[in-house]
Amino acid sequence: MTDITPTPPLRVVLLGCGTVGGHVARLLTTQADELATRIGRPIDLVGIAVRSLDEAPSTLPIDLFTDDALSLVRRDDIDIAIELVGGIDVAGELVRTAIAHGASVVTANKALLGAQGAELFAAADAAGVDLYFEAAVAGAIPIIRPLRESLVGDEVTTVMGIVNGTTNFILDKMTGDHLGFAEALAQAQRLGLAEADPTNDVEGFDAASKAAILASLAFRTWVGAAQVDREGITQLTPDDIAAAADAGCVVKLLATAQILDDGAVSVGVHPTMVPKEHPLAAVGGAYNAIFLLAREAGRLMFLGPGAGGAPTASAVVGDLVTVGRNRHRGVAGASEPVAVTRRVAAPGEATSRFHLRVAVADQPGTLAGVAAIFAAHQVSVRTVHQSAPGSDAVAEIALMTHLAREADVQACVRELAGSPFTKGPIHLLRVEGM
Amino acid sequence: MTDITPTPPLRVVLLGCGTVGGHVARLLTTQADELATRIGRPIDLVGIAVRSLDEAPSTLPIDLFTDDALSLVRRDDIDIAIELVGGIDVAGELVRTAIAHGASVVTANKALLGAQGAELFAAADAAGVDLYFEAAVAGAIPIIRPLRESLVGDEVTTVMGIVNGTTNFILDKMTGDHLGFAEALAQAQRLGLAEADPTNDVEGFDAASKAAILASLAFRTWVGAAQVDREGITQLTPDDIAAAADAGCVVKLLATAQILDDGAVSVGVHPTMVPKEHPLAAVGGAYNAIFLLAREAGRLMFLGPGAGGAPTASAVVGDLVTVGRNRHRGVAGASEPVAVTRRVAAPGEATSRFHLRVAVADQPGTLAGVAAIFAAHQVSVRTVHQSAPGSDAVAEIALMTHLAREADVQACVRELAGSPFTKGPIHLLRVEGM
Repeated sequence: MTDITPTPPLRVVLLGCGTVGGHVARLLTTQADELATRIGRPIDLVGIAVRSLDEAPSTLPIDLFTDDALSLVRRDDIDIAIELVGGIDVAGELVRTAIAHGASVVTANKALLGAQGAELFAAADAAGVDLYFEAAVAGAIPIIRPLRESLVGDEVTTVMGIVNGTTNFILDKMTGDHLGFAEALAQAQRLGLAEADPTNDVEGFDAASKAAILASLAFRTWVGAAQVDREGITQLTPDDIAAAADAGCVVKLLATAQILDDGAVSVGVHPTMVPKEHPLAAVGGAYNAIFLLAREAGRLMFLGPGAGGAPTASAVVGDLVTVGRNRHRGVAGASEPVAVTRRVAAPGEATSRFHLRVAVADQPGTLAGVAAIFAAHQVSVRTVHQSAPGSDAVAEIALMTHLAREADVQACVRELAGSPFTKGPIHLLRVEGM
Repeated sequence: MTDITPTPPLRVVLLGCGTVGGHVARLLTTQADELATRIGRPIDLVGIAVRSLDEAPSTLPIDLFTDDALSLVRRDDIDIAIELVGGIDVAGELVRTAIAHGASVVTANKALLGAQGAELFAAADAAGVDLYFEAAVAGAIPIIRPLRESLVGDEVTTVMGIVNGTTNFILDKMTGDHLGFAEALAQAQRLGLAEADPTNDVEGFDAASKAAILASLAFRTWVGAAQVDREGITQLTPDDIAAAADAGCVVKLLATAQILDDGAVSVGVHPTMVPKEHPLAAVGGAYNAIFLLAREAGRLMFLGPGAGGAPTASAVVGDLVTVGRNRHRGVAGASEPVAVTRRVAAPGEATSRFHLRVAVADQPGTLAGVAAIFAAHQVSVRTVHQSAPGSDAVAEIALMTHLAREADVQACVRELAGSPFTKGPIHLLRVEGM
């Protein structure tokens, strides 16, 4: 039994009160007794920062609100600051100021952590406060604690995830309803699942921030979002989707992180073919999933809603309870064990299987010529299909490699592109989970 | 950065050195530096208890071993005892003794927790030590921390899980290879996936222990394994599997726990139809999966190996690191928040959808008679199919209900069994995940 001791409440400020912040404020109010029991001390929400006081929801007392967020984190009597402002510069200043004034921080801001995580965790560590961020990766899916705690005696070797719901929805529509990218995007925008400027999602920036955080946690080193080899889904065509289906696969935007033989970390975001039987293939719509391979534990997968106000708020409040409990007991949680300095691999160093499609002249020696190019670059071919030629005497070769270094495969692509029997562009996709 | 401070090592004893224990001992040895970094202090494995000294693996120094486990936990200088003895009585005495002598405990023993969990957690709480048990439910799947910490600001309303790999393998074989139960069991036994006496698995006792622990954590009350409404898979026939397939489902042995309208907890283990599209349907072989429904977070699923030496050892060592870190910092982790005393519902109170098959006389009025029985008991029928009659003028009715109280459905079954148009036994299965 946890007693509610008559200690003073923990003083909490909420920075940002949009969709997620509104749900957090609601949970702090409606679940106040429950949270007090779980933490051991009541929570006192002493201030909420909004961009403009016009945005303050009428359901909360107006005197809680301020449009001067810095004034809240400059106070020395704050136990916990919840950062839901988003973006990098302003949010970063708020988090650094809160830490400097002795507050622990809970954040859902993957862009901030992807850009300044190493610095912020070091600051929190030096100040002896907590910096928790479960909501920053894969929304409400509890993935951070498993990586930071449950698997801490094990060794994660691979992380693969569907970490962006917008692109997952678009790819679902391209696959299930045979839409082109532009049509599927327009539908996502109509449903409010994609923004008017969708760049952050469809070009893989959002996924890259999350991939960087996942890789950092899994491999205990710090990887910045800018170091992620990033590729979006805007170039995907219905032909790519159909070719994947022919190979028994679906196309997903996968964040992947792996340890290479020399200990370097390779982190990427790429449209990737996944076999239909793989658990990641069935992750539909706005769901996210993280798949882990660990030396002792084997294959693990975590699935759940990747975004949304209530799920994200659930993760934020879960962190608030842990941080609050630490605060109440006068300890900080496990600091980020960034114990290893690992080289981040260049894009070409990653290993994967690859699927390649190319239109070729239907003439004797073409297949032998293609095969010779792959052999020359030490890329082993797993399967190859040549379609019947059309009236223009052009056939299509679709080919799947065994595990290969990307640089070697790219060398094949360059050589193929310059060869006389190649009659069209070369379409290359990674394949994971075979 | 975590420094290795020159504090004395944490003294650990290992109780039991079978498959899991052997892997734990290996990890403690090979990962010693890594564990010391993560904990902040080195681990000193000071004793290993085995049933007989003949069992001591030759890879470890013989003077570590004893066949007197109690002598290890009676020492007052032990920081952490790892209980891998299994069973209830002896293991319970060891855990209680370790706690009484001031040691924290890590255990993988679901039977012990299912039987004596409430008492043991109270003892640990009173002594200010930790009792961690990630490995006791679903092997290496990190489910305990998400339930205890990540979702602590949320409210879990339903837990459903495939928590026994042996029965999941048998059901896979019955489904994929159309084997009968006895043949599939024999195959599992040949592969070492089922024991010579398979009762604990196939009658659902193992799953019931895990269901009790999951329900206790999810709903913050204590449920004992004996309170779980338990049903095994020994009565399932190929006809049941075929009927499930006709309804677009597969049969899984599901552990389920839900909160009823009056706040009571309903916990059961039953062979259950699951739609083929549901993520739980794809969980094959020896894998386990836990599906959660939470008010804010929505639908979450966790998937991974449910047993095996290395995965279970990974979970044990993960707990060891957390407990060690707590010990090093002089705190105990969050105690089990068994804050609510909830009534455990009687079996009939659970609500589910149900699938019912029965042979009936092919004569006018039969369908109307069946329908009248369900209407009289307030059970709403979702779909009904009547097959063409055989040469004996007997047809089969297969019927799926909407959500209904089990007691009401059982009343329908009793009335059907006594009705003149019923020509054979009544086959009833739950349906979840529609």
